Amino acid sequence: MMAALKRLLIGRPLKSEGLAEEKLGKFKALAILSSDALSSVAYGTEQILLVLMTVGFTALWYSIPISIAVLGLLTILILSYRQTIFAYPTGGGAYIVSKENLGVPVGLLAGGSLLVDYILTVAVSISAGTDAITSAFPQLHDHRVIIAIVMIAFLTIMNLRGLTESASILAYPVYLFVFFMIALILSGIFKFVTTGAPVTPPTSHDVAISGISLYILLRAFSSGCSALTGVEAVSNAIPNFKAPAAKNAAMTLVMMGLVLGSLFMGISFLAYVYGIAPRTEETVVSQIAASTFGRGLMYYAIQASTALILFLAANTAYAAFPLLASMMANDKFMPRMFTVRGDRLGFSNGIIVLGVLSALLVVIFKGDTEGLIPLYALGVFIPFTLSQTGMMRRWFKIKPKGWGISFLINTIGMITTLVICLIFLITKFSQVWMIFLFLPIVIYCFIRIHRHYQDVAAELRIDTKLDLPGTKGNLIVLPVAGVNRVVLNTISYAKSISENIVAVYVAFDDDAAQKMEEKWDEWNPGVRLVTLKSSYRSIIKPLIKFIDTIEWKKSETDYITIMIPQFITSKWWHNLLHNQTSLFIRAYLFNHKNVTISTFPYHLKR
Amino acid sequence: MMAALKRLLIGRPLKSEGLAEEKLGKFKALAILSSDALSSVAYGTEQILLVLMTVGFTALWYSIPISIAVLGLLTILILSYRQTIFAYPTGGGAYIVSKENLGVPVGLLAGGSLLVDYILTVAVSISAGTDAITSAFPQLHDHRVIIAIVMIAFLTIMNLRGLTESASILAYPVYLFVFFMIALILSGIFKFVTTGAPVTPPTSHDVAISGISLYILLRAFSSGCSALTGVEAVSNAIPNFKAPAAKNAAMTLVMMGLVLGSLFMGISFLAYVYGIAPRTEETVVSQIAASTFGRGLMYYAIQASTALILFLAANTAYAAFPLLASMMANDKFMPRMFTVRGDRLGFSNGIIVLGVLSALLVVIFKGDTEGLIPLYALGVFIPFTLSQTGMMRRWFKIKPKGWGISFLINTIGMITTLVICLIFLITKFSQVWMIFLFLPIVIYCFIRIHRHYQDVAAELRIDTKLDLPGTKGNLIVLPVAGVNRVVLNTISYAKSISENIVAVYVAFDDDAAQKMEEKWDEWNPGVRLVTLKSSYRSIIKPLIKFIDTIEWKKSETDYITIMIPQFITSKWWHNLLHNQTSLFIRAYLFNHKNVTISTFPYHLKR
Repeated sequence: MMAALKRLLIGRPLKSEGLAEEKLGKFKALAILSSDALSSVAYGTEQILLVLMTVGFTALWYSIPISIAVLGLLTILILSYRQTIFAYPTGGGAYIVSKENLGVPVGLLAGGSLLVDYILTVAVSISAGTDAITSAFPQLHDHRVIIAIVMIAFLTIMNLRGLTESASILAYPVYLFVFFMIALILSGIFKFVTTGAPVTPPTSHDVAISGISLYILLRAFSSGCSALTGVEAVSNAIPNFKAPAAKNAAMTLVMMGLVLGSLFMGISFLAYVYGIAPRTEETVVSQIAASTFGRGLMYYAIQASTALILFLAANTAYAAFPLLASMMANDKFMPRMFTVRGDRLGFSNGIIVLGVLSALLVVIFKGDTEGLIPLYALGVFIPFTLSQTGMMRRWFKIKPKGWGISFLINTIGMITTLVICLIFLITKFSQVWMIFLFLPIVIYCFIRIHRHYQDVAAELRIDTKLDLPGTKGNLIVLPVAGVNRVVLNTISYAKSISENIVAVYVAFDDDAAQKMEEKWDEWNPGVRLVTLKSSYRSIIKPLIKFIDTIEWKKSETDYITIMIPQFITSKWWHNLLHNQTSLFIRAYLFNHKNVTISTFPYHLKR
Repeated sequence: MMAALKRLLIGRPLKSEGLAEEKLGKFKALAILSSDALSSVAYGTEQILLVLMTVGFTALWYSIPISIAVLGLLTILILSYRQTIFAYPTGGGAYIVSKENLGVPVGLLAGGSLLVDYILTVAVSISAGTDAITSAFPQLHDHRVIIAIVMIAFLTIMNLRGLTESASILAYPVYLFVFFMIALILSGIFKFVTTGAPVTPPTSHDVAISGISLYILLRAFSSGCSALTGVEAVSNAIPNFKAPAAKNAAMTLVMMGLVLGSLFMGISFLAYVYGIAPRTEETVVSQIAASTFGRGLMYYAIQASTALILFLAANTAYAAFPLLASMMANDKFMPRMFTVRGDRLGFSNGIIVLGVLSALLVVIFKGDTEGLIPLYALGVFIPFTLSQTGMMRRWFKIKPKGWGISFLINTIGMITTLVICLIFLITKFSQVWMIFLFLPIVIYCFIRIHRHYQDVAAELRIDTKLDLPGTKGNLIVLPVAGVNRVVLNTISYAKSISENIVAVYVAFDDDAAQKMEEKWDEWNPGVRLVTLKSSYRSIIKPLIKFIDTIEWKKSETDYITIMIPQFITSKWWHNLLHNQTSLFIRAYLFNHKNVTISTFPYHLKR
């Protein structure tokens, strides 16, 4: 039944040969990889305005120069990452670039912050998407956590079904969002030009008197940088692209940058000219849409597509997390299970772990994950910086023709992102200090896991010249509960293995012991019976003691095999009618003694 | 760690020889077996008043004659059951008496209704106890379910610790309750005699005009009969008494009848003379206590002891349910696990099942199990009737000296209880119809279980003269994942069993297959390697197909053994780092193929 449910949700298994077909084209890739970046439009401007509002309404004017600065930063990032894509056509995430150029520990730092960040991406995006829904339908506000969990479950299942299929389903909402945003920005500008703004926006002149500090400006700028999260997704996912992968990926990156830049500036401009201030119960985009179109069909369509793209932003992490986890597992820094491709060729374990952890975050924060945005943004800029540093080192090492310009671009990128990291640390320390707790723990785990795998490998390695199988004797211990067909069959089997067999009966009182011995003598199956007395009605303890004695007596050259008969019932509920003593014995002995356990099945006919 | 927690909660294991010491003396038995019956005082009168109130305040006068009728019924029951105790000194519950005298199906009917009833006892008593608490502290009303569940958990643990120890802890509250009830009744009567009633109670004269019907009177009477639930506990538990068991049990039964009768009449009388009407938010006993003592220390002490005895009433079921379940399991009508005595000599499985099922009822009914009282009372009176009928049959069959009077007593008992069953069915059908659904299902289960055990016994029976173990060959299939020390050790072990060994490697692509074959040839461990190709990245499916082929080819005289190497890690978290493929293979093969599975352990050193 579980298997049937799995089939229904996930679909039939795919052959390994089908892997190449699952690659992404440029436009599909734009949809599946850029939803994270594009969705930032839904909260980037708002984050800037929120900081400026702490000074006062007049300070909102600064949102325009700050947005332009963010746009500049975006350009730098796109240019830098374009270089990485061509330098690492097989996949150039921050983990690989840092590991290769700056050493394993730095690579682990980058990988660790990215993994943590992907989990935050899902939690933050899903919560923001839920906000877009509850802005439109306030009566749903109490069901935020449920809505968010359902969306995470839906995304997880979609991703378990496989990449291309998910992309087909998930591509349209991205195009829809871009379409509606462009429609909103154009209509908004048209309305502003023809009828003027509903509120007179503050000008730079007004602000001069409000005494805004550099600290606030930096804080607002760093908040705006949250709009740039997700840009790195393309460079991590190059192996998923159709050939020529590097070229397609670079194209996709530039397209994404253009769309993101235009939408972000458009929204920031409209927010300014409409004089919109951030409100807790309604998002900025919702306010702009309501002012432009009124709360009609167009408004609800915009809210719906915003919610959708935010849910899809989470999907970027579903593409990136399992891929990075599998790379790190291949390098033996994460459990091997992350390298296993599931029935539909996705890295199912990574997908499931991501879904569970992000759902946990949503539940813990009760759907209010907005407080996590700074942490999330910092978690992106740390690998940005490390990756740029790695590229700088690489250019310096390889020195290809014309490396000077490439080096310069990456240096500018590195300095910018480093400065932004510092701004985050200084202006938002209270919200990001956890990263100093998280990252060391995660990196410690990586190192411990790596050491374990190395230890095991060393322990298991053999010299194929010298190490060859030997031969030993085998002593069989056969616990019996009476004289019956199961015991008969098990003894027959044991005799096929060894001549050295001891049947063991555990009696709860002297009567039972005597009766069993008489019965055994009468039957005389050619196997010695040892009767053990148990005062505490436990079968396992006397058995363990008996095995200890044998182990002490036996020669070093003998194996000990415990032969356990096990009923296989014809109907599942029959299992309730048989004390599963053999299961307990098996589990206990296996974990406590160095003996081989043979389970001999007896299939009940009725 | 689980084991340490178990020790802490349950205590150290006791020897089987300690069983005799766990027997009950008269006074301890009165405490542990009569709390169910005595606790009925807390709701018996209230149940009568609730029905009468549907007619009007003036009808409350009828509570006095109805209470006297209930008292008469109690006398009949005590006399009847006294006879049963002497006739069945080894335990004369309705199940045994009915089974022996009226045949197995009737016995199952009695046993089934008793088992269901014990679960209801726990649910109803715990809920009523929680009511007593929330009557005194209304602010706790929202936490009723939690309080009830905690009490059930507490009782379950106490009972798992063992009978005598539980009795010592639980005996005092019963004495305390009896003491406080006597104090309440005497003070109440004294106050009534000296200062008169606060409200003038209605008299029989007043009622004449209110037109009360026979139907209502019967309904009220049957409600009052709920005060008699629990009387049968003593006769079920005779084996638990100190010798002379029958005499002690009979004495205990009579003492219980006297105490129960006095308390019940006292409360009914006070409720009448104080003119107390039932209220949803406050129990009748709480009202009487408040009128007599005011809401002072005495009031809270009475509420506390009422709550306690109701919790202990549930404890009666904890003594009775596991005992009856073990009897029925010995007769092979219930799963064998109910016959197993736990570490502390109690029938732990019965105790745990009772705790879980009653907790489930409390959760389903959200702590409002008062609606279950009629069902619960009917579930008691059905076995009452069957047991009396059985006794009548017995006297008629055996005809000992002076059997006429005994026969007469049981006949009166039978007719009375039968009439009460009919009254229940007629006046409260809407609340008790479920019993017609429950009982057939439960009895059907008993019969199916019995048939299964008989089938298995027939299947396993051997002729010790003719059936002796034979000898066959053994073919060993050994799945390998590479060339390493685990494989080396497993092959060594396999060679100790049989010369006939096939190593199987499942490759996910042709490269891997070729590499493995070359490596194997280079090593040459003296065992043939078969390489299987898996297109769906599943190890189990190609393996199953391979085993199918072998099964089809092999001679009938060969066993097939699958030899599975299994890592035993030195730290638990290391398990996460190894795909537990061998566990999956083991579980799958075991349930699907008729092969022996040998698990060969490899203990990792680090």
